[in-house]
Amino acid sequence: MYHIEREINEQPEVMARLLAEQYETAQRIAAAIRDFNPAFVHIAARGTSDNAGRYAQYLMGIHARLPVALAAPSIHTIYESAPDLSRALVLAISQSGRSDDVRRVVTDARAQGALTVSITNNADSMLAHDAEYHLPLLAGEEISVAATKTYTAELTAIAMLVKALVPDFDSEDYLDRLPAYAEETLKLSDSVVDWAQRYRYMDRFASIGRGYNYCTAFEVSLKIKELCYITGVEYSEADFRHGPIALVQPGFPVLVVAPEGKTLPLLLDLLESLKQKNAECLVISNSSVARDLAVNAMAIPAVPEWLSPLVAVIPGQTLAMRLALAKGHSVDKPEGLQKVTVTV
Amino acid sequence: MYHIEREINEQPEVMARLLAEQYETAQRIAAAIRDFNPAFVHIAARGTSDNAGRYAQYLMGIHARLPVALAAPSIHTIYESAPDLSRALVLAISQSGRSDDVRRVVTDARAQGALTVSITNNADSMLAHDAEYHLPLLAGEEISVAATKTYTAELTAIAMLVKALVPDFDSEDYLDRLPAYAEETLKLSDSVVDWAQRYRYMDRFASIGRGYNYCTAFEVSLKIKELCYITGVEYSEADFRHGPIALVQPGFPVLVVAPEGKTLPLLLDLLESLKQKNAECLVISNSSVARDLAVNAMAIPAVPEWLSPLVAVIPGQTLAMRLALAKGHSVDKPEGLQKVTVTV
Repeated sequence: MYHIEREINEQPEVMARLLAEQYETAQRIAAAIRDFNPAFVHIAARGTSDNAGRYAQYLMGIHARLPVALAAPSIHTIYESAPDLSRALVLAISQSGRSDDVRRVVTDARAQGALTVSITNNADSMLAHDAEYHLPLLAGEEISVAATKTYTAELTAIAMLVKALVPDFDSEDYLDRLPAYAEETLKLSDSVVDWAQRYRYMDRFASIGRGYNYCTAFEVSLKIKELCYITGVEYSEADFRHGPIALVQPGFPVLVVAPEGKTLPLLLDLLESLKQKNAECLVISNSSVARDLAVNAMAIPAVPEWLSPLVAVIPGQTLAMRLALAKGHSVDKPEGLQKVTVTV
Repeated sequence: MYHIEREINEQPEVMARLLAEQYETAQRIAAAIRDFNPAFVHIAARGTSDNAGRYAQYLMGIHARLPVALAAPSIHTIYESAPDLSRALVLAISQSGRSDDVRRVVTDARAQGALTVSITNNADSMLAHDAEYHLPLLAGEEISVAATKTYTAELTAIAMLVKALVPDFDSEDYLDRLPAYAEETLKLSDSVVDWAQRYRYMDRFASIGRGYNYCTAFEVSLKIKELCYITGVEYSEADFRHGPIALVQPGFPVLVVAPEGKTLPLLLDLLESLKQKNAECLVISNSSVARDLAVNAMAIPAVPEWLSPLVAVIPGQTLAMRLALAKGHSVDKPEGLQKVTVTV
């Protein structure tokens, strides 16, 4: 078994451990956030963790009423300046906790009096020590260069923080059932192996999401790019219609993340337009109406829309891995990539 | 002459008018910002105007020490929620001033007590009235569907606001010379016509910038996508190295925006790597070292790095137009696009 395959399969277990063992940490951080009363959240992250930041923008914006900014770390590192973050909750997200530019945002912000919190998979990392509070992902070592279990663990940690922060959020405790939903999603993803080879010669694609699953469109696209060396473009359904939809020719592959929820009518409408253009639609959805509009569909369980990004990415991870294997690529060590990238 | 060609050529005149006639407005808005003392800036925009927001993130972050968040308007429209923006400067940027989702962010924020400012090319638009303050671009009607002069006018307006806000910013008055720099850039861009046809059959490309010119990489890519129907991927130099660089095969076209300044050493290093991979490098730069690493180079005048995005986009606009003409496309009314897109 490949490392990435094992790590994809470990996700339910990682989620269950995080939910069980870091409940108190999330409560403690939530109490600090309430005390501090930040004007906004400033998220420092790169790559996959930046996609977790995109999830936080929606979950925190909608449920905790916190506006979220995604940091531009080069303001700190290259331009040696620092915006005034004294009224911010600065949230750093990094698998390794070793990203120098993310660390720099945190140390600058902490010196200014910001509330600083880090989420990493390495409780001994420098970033874990830089921030005042730390939430460890406890995902176990991630050996594959392409991040999978640490991404869903990051989303789980964000959901735990919002649940700890907002009394009436998730009053029906869907988050507790996440490991079971993820387990079910893994089973549903098995069929990807039957058709992934169809995309063996695909040389480009678009990946579309909206709202909560904007992050999923980016993350699935990133996995396919990392593992399969295929050019992908990611868009929100709104931005896609503003222009890039003009690119779509017959057979052009478009992956649409379209779960049940407030965004579904817009995404169904987009899928209808794409079908009229004879695009090759791939759909990740728990709506059979959406799946019926696709050439190939990936089913996920029925979950509230806010929780759907935590499972919707899973068949995308599987697709990226299966497609890389169909192309004969190394899935654990893609060419030209390192697990920890040190960015100036 | 095509509308877009005329509008590209009008840019020096538009900049000069805006600088001359809206100086007082910028001063008045800056005074209001100082009084309000916002914790952060929340920018609502879509498409091209969103790229102007990316410029604001760096210019305001570095020089006015204001952290900048790019709004997710669907939090307001689709999820019918609103983050607490009461401590924010909400800056709405829209050519038409008719984008419903951008308007909604402004009306929600104003009701909460935020300081609201709009920048539009239509002083009679609804958005101009929604916000407490309005800075009109005075760019004249933009007939071409692909925005050019309104984009550089938006960047000019942002620079004017920062200059009005920060006493020691641009003490040498480079901004006053912007129309002359833009005029010089137009002349330097003439040579693009000689080689644009080389990319007649290009089916994908990457567009790279860093820091101030992250926006330029996005905006040039958007113009090429809108006018030429070619799939482009945009990255900061840092994110590109984190993964997608693995996509680069011999002949793969990469446009690099690499002006003199703090980001130049990183971009030169990237250009060297790309050259080793036999990528097809296109460079926009005022550094002859950077231009010498390119297959085709677009020169811009010597300007401070913070001002470079206001001229660096111009040869990119010209390239997009010339390439569209080489491909036989309508440059003023690209297929499937409308000038004003109404997004839910």
